Amino acid sequence: MTASYDVAAVGNAIVDVIAPAQDNFLAQEDLSKGAMMLIDDQRAGHLYSRMAAGVEASGGSAGNTVAGVASLGGRAAYIGKIAEDGLGKVFLHDIRAQGVHFDPTPLTGGPGTGRCLINVTPDGQRTMCTCLGAASLLTPADVDPEIVRNAAIVYLEGYLFDPDDARHAFAKAARIARDAGRKIALTLSDAFVVERHRPALLAFIDSEIDIVFANEAEVTALFQTTDFDTAASLLAARVRTACVTRGDRGSVIYTDGAAEFVPAAPARQVLDTTGAGDQYAAGVMFGLARGLAPATCGRLGSLAAAEVIDHYGPRPQTSLKSLATEAGLI
Amino acid sequence: MTASYDVAAVGNAIVDVIAPAQDNFLAQEDLSKGAMMLIDDQRAGHLYSRMAAGVEASGGSAGNTVAGVASLGGRAAYIGKIAEDGLGKVFLHDIRAQGVHFDPTPLTGGPGTGRCLINVTPDGQRTMCTCLGAASLLTPADVDPEIVRNAAIVYLEGYLFDPDDARHAFAKAARIARDAGRKIALTLSDAFVVERHRPALLAFIDSEIDIVFANEAEVTALFQTTDFDTAASLLAARVRTACVTRGDRGSVIYTDGAAEFVPAAPARQVLDTTGAGDQYAAGVMFGLARGLAPATCGRLGSLAAAEVIDHYGPRPQTSLKSLATEAGLI
Repeated sequence: MTASYDVAAVGNAIVDVIAPAQDNFLAQEDLSKGAMMLIDDQRAGHLYSRMAAGVEASGGSAGNTVAGVASLGGRAAYIGKIAEDGLGKVFLHDIRAQGVHFDPTPLTGGPGTGRCLINVTPDGQRTMCTCLGAASLLTPADVDPEIVRNAAIVYLEGYLFDPDDARHAFAKAARIARDAGRKIALTLSDAFVVERHRPALLAFIDSEIDIVFANEAEVTALFQTTDFDTAASLLAARVRTACVTRGDRGSVIYTDGAAEFVPAAPARQVLDTTGAGDQYAAGVMFGLARGLAPATCGRLGSLAAAEVIDHYGPRPQTSLKSLATEAGLI
Repeated sequence: MTASYDVAAVGNAIVDVIAPAQDNFLAQEDLSKGAMMLIDDQRAGHLYSRMAAGVEASGGSAGNTVAGVASLGGRAAYIGKIAEDGLGKVFLHDIRAQGVHFDPTPLTGGPGTGRCLINVTPDGQRTMCTCLGAASLLTPADVDPEIVRNAAIVYLEGYLFDPDDARHAFAKAARIARDAGRKIALTLSDAFVVERHRPALLAFIDSEIDIVFANEAEVTALFQTTDFDTAASLLAARVRTACVTRGDRGSVIYTDGAAEFVPAAPARQVLDTTGAGDQYAAGVMFGLARGLAPATCGRLGSLAAAEVIDHYGPRPQTSLKSLATEAGLI
């Protein structure tokens, strides 16, 4: 059966609060640069009171990715949990305005929509503190089988390995996708997520996953080695497609073990790296869903990542379809 | 008595929702390009559902101006009305994080914090639809005499001529400032505001105002002429200091009738003109409060305006103090 969607993603529905910060602020607040930390409401209130003036923008790793797929001209759907509040309305509006299908049952009477406090240091690196709120209450009931069954690739966000119910939602999505003969992709999301769930992640990859996205810190954490090549080879041996990113040194896409080295695309400036990995995944999966060669998929990923790092905010502000067409990639 | 603040501003406390739009969208939605329209909750809901994905950022004309004054290294205070809700917290956080004094009594049980839907067309022009909410319920009780009395310049936002109670709050602020021997500044804000309140604005200027800010459309509307020079001269004859802006053609500052022509400062790019006039006022008033010459005040205004038009969002993202120091202005 032809897929109605190129990509359907399951992720934490999060609104970002993005503000500039100095390195000494990270030290004072005991924040690990470049990482994502989970924080509770009280800590979020404290941290927000000390952050600089910011902007609010819809985020969430997988949400950013499907927005990128749509910007490339792809058909995308999203599964996640928002609350019936102001931030939830913002999230819903923005993802639909990008052309992504999202039809949630908002949470009432519980915590508010998830938010992520992002401090961007002058080197463009983002340090993220996430108060999950409603996002962490995603349950298997939120996974619409019709959506999953009709997507060429189902994309799962590693951050959702933290809440129990969400992990069950993952399992449900994976089972439906498998039964429908679809591809299942997973992003490892964060090195600390990998540390927290290493055995479960490896078992999940072995049993369910066709495509894995990981950056250098995540893949080396997964295989507990400091050597990138060793870690990447170990991952490549376990899945059909392994996409490993290395920041401005580009990425490697392994297909049945064969490596394709992909250069990073030049960015006008590096202002805020928030969403770079998410957009890379968008470009690669759009290409894979359309049956393009790995080298082209990788270049689409690099192009999408370069667009998002030259401005604040985790989603494309320019049509990726136009950029990819100009570059002769689609 | 020495002033504790360079500028204290009274304005509509508004959070902006900023999104890109095409010109035909403005036509479809019957929006007058470059203007500010007041809309009710229902219309705001309709319009938001049709807008592109956006970012949320604290705004409000006078709020932007005091943020600019603080960014220049000045001491600033703000008076405005927010609600006890999520957007209100965003507004409060951002203006305090910029170093501005703001100690409001948030509204409970009434409308939410004001918001402004801003559609930015490819030419960088912003078209604004404002749902005032709590902002329009500013009353004289919200004007803290201690703040007004201790500010070298009290700055009043013309948009507040629309709600009755807010106009009374203006009158109170003006009376306190006058009694304390402070300067009183007014921005005309918008040509349609001028059309709605022309006689009252002229009477208010004659009786209370020392410094007026106006752009070309506003000053010509005030004197019902199409000739800029005629309108500017008429304004200059009525107030001590008249600052009239002409977009990329710079501005003219009249001091006791003597004209000082000020060039616009070059911007890296024109992405979003939202807040350009607000930042111009910030630069000029910072200079006036510090006793700088009109030419220098004007150049500070141009420099602040140039910073804000090269990015989305109505407030400075770079330290204006650093930029002004580099330019040798302070």
